[in-house]
Amino acid sequence: MSDIRILHEAELRDRVALDAQAIDVVESAFATLARGGVEMPPILSMHMPEVNGELDVKTAYVPGLPGFAVKLSPGFFDNPSRGLPSTSGLMVVLSSETGRVQAVLLDNGYLTDVRTAAAGGVAARHLARADASRAAIFGAGLQARMQLQALRLVRPISEAVIWARDPAKAQALAEELTSVELRVRASADPAEAAGFADVIVTTTPATGPILRADWLRPGQHVTAMGSDQPGKCELEPQCLARADLYVADRVSQTRLMGELRAALANGCAPDPETIPEIGEIVLGRHPGRTGPEQITIADLTGTGVQDTAIATHALAAFSTEV
Amino acid sequence: MSDIRILHEAELRDRVALDAQAIDVVESAFATLARGGVEMPPILSMHMPEVNGELDVKTAYVPGLPGFAVKLSPGFFDNPSRGLPSTSGLMVVLSSETGRVQAVLLDNGYLTDVRTAAAGGVAARHLARADASRAAIFGAGLQARMQLQALRLVRPISEAVIWARDPAKAQALAEELTSVELRVRASADPAEAAGFADVIVTTTPATGPILRADWLRPGQHVTAMGSDQPGKCELEPQCLARADLYVADRVSQTRLMGELRAALANGCAPDPETIPEIGEIVLGRHPGRTGPEQITIADLTGTGVQDTAIATHALAAFSTEV
Repeated sequence: MSDIRILHEAELRDRVALDAQAIDVVESAFATLARGGVEMPPILSMHMPEVNGELDVKTAYVPGLPGFAVKLSPGFFDNPSRGLPSTSGLMVVLSSETGRVQAVLLDNGYLTDVRTAAAGGVAARHLARADASRAAIFGAGLQARMQLQALRLVRPISEAVIWARDPAKAQALAEELTSVELRVRASADPAEAAGFADVIVTTTPATGPILRADWLRPGQHVTAMGSDQPGKCELEPQCLARADLYVADRVSQTRLMGELRAALANGCAPDPETIPEIGEIVLGRHPGRTGPEQITIADLTGTGVQDTAIATHALAAFSTEV
Repeated sequence: MSDIRILHEAELRDRVALDAQAIDVVESAFATLARGGVEMPPILSMHMPEVNGELDVKTAYVPGLPGFAVKLSPGFFDNPSRGLPSTSGLMVVLSSETGRVQAVLLDNGYLTDVRTAAAGGVAARHLARADASRAAIFGAGLQARMQLQALRLVRPISEAVIWARDPAKAQALAEELTSVELRVRASADPAEAAGFADVIVTTTPATGPILRADWLRPGQHVTAMGSDQPGKCELEPQCLARADLYVADRVSQTRLMGELRAALANGCAPDPETIPEIGEIVLGRHPGRTGPEQITIADLTGTGVQDTAIATHALAAFSTEV
């Protein structure tokens, strides 16, 4: 009846993991974006205040790939009170040659979780000190877990601290994640948590600063991945002035919906024309961190090219059977 | 494994027809849009010149409906040389309450064809003279057939003439569509075809005028539905000045990608602030045609609210079985 492949969440979870390969796939996507030729239109965003919901649609056409993904990401923030996660969604893969639908990945947002965490891994791989062993995670949700997992794939992390607005959640997550190889504790003091770490990852839906500039110390790398909407922000704008290097996944996005937005409004942002994108560092066109005492920041808002890359990667995992 | 409904093109063709009910559904969608409360973000458009392709994504949230649709419409213009239609795509229906995916309608663009033709029916129902019996169709593609079918559902059409850039296609379509109730002929002369008709529907991908203002005569209604991209146009801009009434499906769209665009550029458009949308006429907030000798024009670019309406209608046709 149809040669369209329909893949469900359980199958996708089974075959597609947050592993070194996923990080490589997303790294390569950023490189392709920097190389040029990628078509990545502005995100379609629909707000439905009546039902406390929003929908984002992202896509990107990448020359040379057999297909391109269109991702629907709904966020319905009354869902937790119904026992459902806030986010869900799917990806549709269309042929780059004919536009025909090739696959529908009913992942409920799982592939987004993977490619988002993988981007954190890419950022740390290129910007954190090679000897980074201590991580601080701000937030205690799914991305808190996954970003820590991604960090451990690229850096010798042996200790981690969790800070979250709800200390009980931080404590529960620390207990869950601690193991022989990784000591994880919760901290009620975000300044202490920040000061402890070589790498800080902020993973919250905060709409105001949770990380202060004067908590930062030389040698640290910060990945801010929570802000993906014009109303969100996690870093005090002065963090960007304090850093030696600020890197965006996509400058045109971070200035609208990332940490760059508030920093520009506060006059403490670098000149957007000079900001490197992470793909330029992957390609070696920008040197990235040039000294162990530098402070670096990566601002991740999530890009359509990551979606096309992870969807292509997921489909490849099923390509031996038809 | 999943309670997501997957419906294929053949099933959808079997249950959802271009009939009076489909026209009512789209009419009601326009009314809802005019009433307010609908969220309908700008269309996401991605151009892929490397593969002569484009992708449009449309959506609309309609208060009171259980779901909202997101439609992916790819157009790949080298497809005909491969024996494939240029357009395809699908609709995804998400819950208005939770954002979870409820259904994937793998219609290959069929539901778009239906809701597009139905919009032509709505326009003629509200703007063409009640006694309109002669139709002229410009174009000989799928919408030429379907727009004529929609006209016959709302007006006593007994004669039709087809003009197309390729006279052989016009002739073949005329022969195919002619019947006991409907006499259809082809015309090689677009001025003659236009002059003959009470209702003219332009259904082409033209990028320059195919209907001239001085061909129009009192009492006619024109529906221009071909232009849905900033590079397209079917009407000589002066047609809008010549008309007594110009109606848009959505003014914010027709000024960017409909007939209004060129007319504004040529200084012969009505003031956009005063242009009624078709839903306002459906609701009776604007009188529409007020005399038998008026010339009226409807400019249809296609709206997300039509997609949500037809997707809801299609799902309802399957709701008795689960």
